Amino acid sequence: MTSIKHRSKKAGLAPGTLIHMGRDKGGATRVDLVQYDETRLEKRPVTALDECLIKKGIPGVTWINVEGLSDVEVLRHFGSCYGIHPLVLEDILATDQRPKAADYGEYLYVVLKMLGVDDGTGEIKSEQVSLVLGQNYLISFQEGLEGDVFEQVRARLVNEKARLRAMGPDFLLHALLDVIVDHYFLILEKLADRIEDVEDELIDNPTTATVQTIYRLKRQMLFLHKAFWPLREVASSLQRRDSQLIRDTTVIYLRDLYDHTVQVLDTLETLREMLSGMLDIYLSSVSNRLNEVMKVLTIIATIFMPLSFVVGWYGMNFKHMPELEWSYGYPVVFVICLVLAGGMLVYFKNKRWL
Amino acid sequence: MTSIKHRSKKAGLAPGTLIHMGRDKGGATRVDLVQYDETRLEKRPVTALDECLIKKGIPGVTWINVEGLSDVEVLRHFGSCYGIHPLVLEDILATDQRPKAADYGEYLYVVLKMLGVDDGTGEIKSEQVSLVLGQNYLISFQEGLEGDVFEQVRARLVNEKARLRAMGPDFLLHALLDVIVDHYFLILEKLADRIEDVEDELIDNPTTATVQTIYRLKRQMLFLHKAFWPLREVASSLQRRDSQLIRDTTVIYLRDLYDHTVQVLDTLETLREMLSGMLDIYLSSVSNRLNEVMKVLTIIATIFMPLSFVVGWYGMNFKHMPELEWSYGYPVVFVICLVLAGGMLVYFKNKRWL
Amino acid sequence: MTSIKHRSKKAGLAPGTLIHMGRDKGGATRVDLVQYDETRLEKRPVTALDECLIKKGIPGVTWINVEGLSDVEVLRHFGSCYGIHPLVLEDILATDQRPKAADYGEYLYVVLKMLGVDDGTGEIKSEQVSLVLGQNYLISFQEGLEGDVFEQVRARLVNEKARLRAMGPDFLLHALLDVIVDHYFLILEKLADRIEDVEDELIDNPTTATVQTIYRLKRQMLFLHKAFWPLREVASSLQRRDSQLIRDTTVIYLRDLYDHTVQVLDTLETLREMLSGMLDIYLSSVSNRLNEVMKVLTIIATIFMPLSFVVGWYGMNFKHMPELEWSYGYPVVFVICLVLAGGMLVYFKNKRWL
Amino acid sequence: MTSIKHRSKKAGLAPGTLIHMGRDKGGATRVDLVQYDETRLEKRPVTALDECLIKKGIPGVTWINVEGLSDVEVLRHFGSCYGIHPLVLEDILATDQRPKAADYGEYLYVVLKMLGVDDGTGEIKSEQVSLVLGQNYLISFQEGLEGDVFEQVRARLVNEKARLRAMGPDFLLHALLDVIVDHYFLILEKLADRIEDVEDELIDNPTTATVQTIYRLKRQMLFLHKAFWPLREVASSLQRRDSQLIRDTTVIYLRDLYDHTVQVLDTLETLREMLSGMLDIYLSSVSNRLNEVMKVLTIIATIFMPLSFVVGWYGMNFKHMPELEWSYGYPVVFVICLVLAGGMLVYFKNKRWL
Amino acid sequence: MTSIKHRSKKAGLAPGTLIHMGRDKGGATRVDLVQYDETRLEKRPVTALDECLIKKGIPGVTWINVEGLSDVEVLRHFGSCYGIHPLVLEDILATDQRPKAADYGEYLYVVLKMLGVDDGTGEIKSEQVSLVLGQNYLISFQEGLEGDVFEQVRARLVNEKARLRAMGPDFLLHALLDVIVDHYFLILEKLADRIEDVEDELIDNPTTATVQTIYRLKRQMLFLHKAFWPLREVASSLQRRDSQLIRDTTVIYLRDLYDHTVQVLDTLETLREMLSGMLDIYLSSVSNRLNEVMKVLTIIATIFMPLSFVVGWYGMNFKHMPELEWSYGYPVVFVICLVLAGGMLVYFKNKRWL
Repeated sequence: MTSIKHRSKKAGLAPGTLIHMGRDKGGATRVDLVQYDETRLEKRPVTALDECLIKKGIPGVTWINVEGLSDVEVLRHFGSCYGIHPLVLEDILATDQRPKAADYGEYLYVVLKMLGVDDGTGEIKSEQVSLVLGQNYLISFQEGLEGDVFEQVRARLVNEKARLRAMGPDFLLHALLDVIVDHYFLILEKLADRIEDVEDELIDNPTTATVQTIYRLKRQMLFLHKAFWPLREVASSLQRRDSQLIRDTTVIYLRDLYDHTVQVLDTLETLREMLSGMLDIYLSSVSNRLNEVMKVLTIIATIFMPLSFVVGWYGMNFKHMPELEWSYGYPVVFVICLVLAGGMLVYFKNKRWL
Repeated sequence: MTSIKHRSKKAGLAPGTLIHMGRDKGGATRVDLVQYDETRLEKRPVTALDECLIKKGIPGVTWINVEGLSDVEVLRHFGSCYGIHPLVLEDILATDQRPKAADYGEYLYVVLKMLGVDDGTGEIKSEQVSLVLGQNYLISFQEGLEGDVFEQVRARLVNEKARLRAMGPDFLLHALLDVIVDHYFLILEKLADRIEDVEDELIDNPTTATVQTIYRLKRQMLFLHKAFWPLREVASSLQRRDSQLIRDTTVIYLRDLYDHTVQVLDTLETLREMLSGMLDIYLSSVSNRLNEVMKVLTIIATIFMPLSFVVGWYGMNFKHMPELEWSYGYPVVFVICLVLAGGMLVYFKNKRWL
Repeated sequence: MTSIKHRSKKAGLAPGTLIHMGRDKGGATRVDLVQYDETRLEKRPVTALDECLIKKGIPGVTWINVEGLSDVEVLRHFGSCYGIHPLVLEDILATDQRPKAADYGEYLYVVLKMLGVDDGTGEIKSEQVSLVLGQNYLISFQEGLEGDVFEQVRARLVNEKARLRAMGPDFLLHALLDVIVDHYFLILEKLADRIEDVEDELIDNPTTATVQTIYRLKRQMLFLHKAFWPLREVASSLQRRDSQLIRDTTVIYLRDLYDHTVQVLDTLETLREMLSGMLDIYLSSVSNRLNEVMKVLTIIATIFMPLSFVVGWYGMNFKHMPELEWSYGYPVVFVICLVLAGGMLVYFKNKRWL
Repeated sequence: MTSIKHRSKKAGLAPGTLIHMGRDKGGATRVDLVQYDETRLEKRPVTALDECLIKKGIPGVTWINVEGLSDVEVLRHFGSCYGIHPLVLEDILATDQRPKAADYGEYLYVVLKMLGVDDGTGEIKSEQVSLVLGQNYLISFQEGLEGDVFEQVRARLVNEKARLRAMGPDFLLHALLDVIVDHYFLILEKLADRIEDVEDELIDNPTTATVQTIYRLKRQMLFLHKAFWPLREVASSLQRRDSQLIRDTTVIYLRDLYDHTVQVLDTLETLREMLSGMLDIYLSSVSNRLNEVMKVLTIIATIFMPLSFVVGWYGMNFKHMPELEWSYGYPVVFVICLVLAGGMLVYFKNKRWL
Repeated sequence: MTSIKHRSKKAGLAPGTLIHMGRDKGGATRVDLVQYDETRLEKRPVTALDECLIKKGIPGVTWINVEGLSDVEVLRHFGSCYGIHPLVLEDILATDQRPKAADYGEYLYVVLKMLGVDDGTGEIKSEQVSLVLGQNYLISFQEGLEGDVFEQVRARLVNEKARLRAMGPDFLLHALLDVIVDHYFLILEKLADRIEDVEDELIDNPTTATVQTIYRLKRQMLFLHKAFWPLREVASSLQRRDSQLIRDTTVIYLRDLYDHTVQVLDTLETLREMLSGMLDIYLSSVSNRLNEVMKVLTIIATIFMPLSFVVGWYGMNFKHMPELEWSYGYPVVFVICLVLAGGMLVYFKNKRWL
């Protein structure tokens, strides 16, 4: 919901105006640089952005990771060094982007959501990641939440024999996208767990809270759907070899990425259908319980109302009520009451209410 | 709803017949002219429409803004000066147009809704905007509601270094469309606020009024859907370079506009799904409360009906009722009543009704 | 519904067998002829169909309007004179046709529904109109209901300066289609009025009759949907210049017709979604009222059942009931009853049931 | 449902294995042969299948109709004589085929459902019909239910001047398909009748039986949808001239067939939507009646519970109850009761419950 | 659900990392080899995987069946022998694959679910099957559940005259796919049986358990839908002759396979629609029963509340109650009570509540 609210801040500004729209998710902007080829690997934080970090024609692959978008100057620096269009810079800052891939000839721009789980609270964290792929470099921009899902890629880079080291920046792009999509399965797993809990609750003891949980889960799935659905188109376009920055050897891996994306969507769709089926169960179970309650009430009333009438009858104060004088009057009324009550019980037994 | 009603006024008239169909939203028709290039900016209101305002081959960009459609003669003037087809003029007057973009070779016609929020009442105002883009001019027609969303564009025009000043009328077209679409986010933000309010209401204290609010919100979204959905096709066709009036440098900006349009639709769709989920919650909460009410009733009846029977029993006036004579009769009935009531309470406890 | 029933009469007959399938909507078949060009206009009823009315190569436009389909011979006459395929003649007679446009080279066949409102009863009247467009003629077939929507076209024809007079029969085709589609807006306006009435009813005092009205409106919309939906394809195919009988100057008008068709469908869709939302409101309002009723019952029962127990208690006839002898017994019971009732009221107040 | 069960008998057999899968719908297999051209018509039952019935190059059209699929040898005979692929023979026997048209070059295979109404019971009968169209022959296979819908085609064949006699086997194919599709309208008519009955029942006196009827109708429509939907694709592919066995003169008739198919689907869809609307009405009517019942109960309880309390009050046996001694005590209580009851009635009147 | 959970184990690993993700469904990995051509058939278990089993240019067809995926080394062996891409090996191990067919030039990879029914428990067993088709070989990988559906194919291979023996490995691929899809019908048959049981239950005695059964069936159908839906695309792509490994003679059989797949989906869809209709019936039947219960309660209360009031009235202890002294007071009250009760019964009779 918050994303809708921040977007309106920009209404009417010139396109390409650089304003950081998201909540400020981190502290200072941090820039890390990794340069590698098959034989060499160099990692260092970048402290000063005086001159352009990557020169044309430099061999190997350069990966620059930017954490935190609050410092607009950093973005401007990269924009002028690598000829990134102001609209792309604007998109990097607008942290409610729909996932997309756009080919600008000189570079390829991919934006998507990185989802993670907070180790402490177990909450889902969402962060926008923008990737700019050039001839011999890849720049990744994160919103600046602590931690990211790229650790495993960094670990693989250290290994000299990793395929990653032998290939170009397009393969690094695939590696980063792949690890992001893989983490989507973690989120879906968490959701599946909670849906199973709700299922158990539905059968044991459904309450209004159960419905609210279902609603909240639905809302989360709406959010995930919004984040996942356009990704299919992104992966599909990358794999179609539209851009010359994607080498042929990488295409087969991007096809694999596409398969994963489709699977993520399939799983999400299955979970959604399961959820919507649950509401039907809930409603039918509520209706059933109402039926049960009403049966109890009706049985009680149907047994005791006639009985009360009978005893009220002989509580009347008429002078001339012959039964009152009879010596067997009292036991006869007792029998009448027993028969009435028993008859009712048999009737309800036949109606299967008991 | 009103739009449907006005449309029928025209049934059977020759195509191209100029009749103002909308409610009269403003007073007199006002024409404003802005002429600019990189070095020069001239603004003036136009009082007399004796001769054509723009000559062929005039350098720079001319932007004519027409407010108010009640004076059909003004339209006819523009029609004959710039060769605008009578059907286009008719469309400008028919203020219930579906958003569309049509290429007439010499000029490009774009029509869409401009939405704004009234500063005083907070109500949503809607107005049809028609844009006619020619080789060196852009004419915009508004229905004439006070105020428009173009102020920010006018402000940017004043700035000599603005990209807007250096580019053609197609870039001005983009600027106007962009600011209109940006204001859609404001409307969506307002809707999101109200949906959040309804959500809170649903959990705290849902009433029939809540359902009526949901229904009204749904209706507004139907209206917005009708206004936004065709826009996607409009933005897409503009960006596809179908018209020679769109310069290559502007295309990248129109692609950005297309992205915004898709995002507007996405957000609207998300809000709609949230709303429809709410009705389910409401219904299940109503069912639940009914259950609660019925439980209270059943518990009361189930406890007091047997008790009333017992005390009624000893209110009978039979001559021969031995218990009445016993000295412990009264306390025994007291104990029986206690046990009956206690037993019922335990029963309901076990059924988790309490 | 009736259309389904008449169709089965024809099962198994040879294709092209001419049988009038619809209800007989009018009396005798009437043929009217209008011949015009820019300078000349001649109108006359045709009484005898001895020879073909239009010769090849005759200048100007000939419009033959046939009212009433009961006389199959008339159709056969037109079939043999202008080489109309027997299947087309069969379609003209089968008055439950789906709207369509089919190009037979020599002529173009368009069939659709003409809807009107009966001035007296306000009922919607529906009639099938078939249009056969040739090189220099247009033949229109109506089912023969009194009155049609073409009067305005006839009135425009009288005017010598009308564009209609200067153009070919394809422009006449457009004029007739346009006036038919324009009248659809009248029908939609009527529906919108009734929907607004239902909305008011829903909020004021919803009854079962309201639901039945909603259902009837839905059914009417199903009928309209069936009549309107294929029209979009018809208008689209006409505008695509598939036929050589459509001149280039007419195409722009047919594009306008297409826009109107889309708008008709859009409006119908909006009305349908509004209707389906209403049923939800109705159901939730019924549930709410049930809740209200049950609350009243529960409050009454919860207050008076314990009270009745108390007074029943002291109606017992035990010999030894000390309270009965106490001089303050009666007032104490009075106070107990007051406290019980008051306590219940406070309890319901807290539960917000009051 | 039965079709699902028979299909599994074949699991794992080699493709082209000939096993009759359907219920045995008839007795012995019967083969009838009709040979005709413009001048000649010969009909005879075939008793022995020693040699191939149709030689290549025989003039005129040969139509072989096979009734009953229980004798697999007959199928094998036709397979070897006319080079029909084993998979096609298998499809002919598998009587739960989805309607389809497949072009095998030498011949064209069309399979669909023939629906009829049993004259006695009024039940719908369904039978699979396979049609194999060759250069100069057409073979039709039926499951063997008594009677078929082809009688009318046979009658038309007798007529020497019928177009059917002058044209090739592809026109005969159209004639058979056309008569089958025409009979679909009969089925839809029956359904429409029953739906109208259900509508009346819904308004007069809806019961659980009504819902079960709606469900059964829905199920029948599911079956029809399965039978009709693929037919659209069949008719469309035939009309597209994909096969060289379809002559140009027949194409226009197949286009007509396609139109009928679309109309069948349209009508079915309309009936389905009507049915689904009915369930909503039923549910709302049930809710309404519950409301009515509850109102009666509440009114009764609200009137008599306070009254019972009052009379119970004066049934107490306290020694000191001054009212009991008053000479106007009894009439005063009478008035109190009248006022209480009257007040309640006014209250319910105001609430519009009465 | 379990499949979602295992997938997350792999998040962040390098693509092509071989980890067995599924539950361990069997014991040791077993490899069986069948080599055949028209004259020869050799079957043997493979115990040692020292060298590649199939040499290039070996005549005839080699079918290697691998049961059990726990031994990753076996996979690696096949990968290096036949040049299978690491990503394919990874897919073979990841046992939650979406069915797909991918052409890698040298070989074709097809993955899908094999469903079977456990003979003992009647439970549905699911297992992933991967098929790798090469120029002269086919390798099938199963998860290792005991038993498979291929027995019938093995039996057909023994028969020297079987078409299977005369054709290439692509025909074997078809045979395996065909038998897998044929077994889907068995599963659907089981589901159809259970749905019919639920239908009977719904009409006889619907309980909450019925709804839970419906929900469980829905969930199973979701699973089947996920397994079947992509298969359509698989069969369609195989039949389109995209790969050169598919010979022309096999294409017609693959088209047949495609038809079966479509039929499987059709049947599943029909079953799903039947199920969703059932829930509506259930809800309406529950509502109806509630109505019945409430009518009983209301009838009882409406009859006995006024009666109780009457007898309570004459239980009052006023000194001056003239009726009590009347000698006909008692019989008159008796008659009043009879009339009251009778009147109520007539009233309910008229309301059709009885």
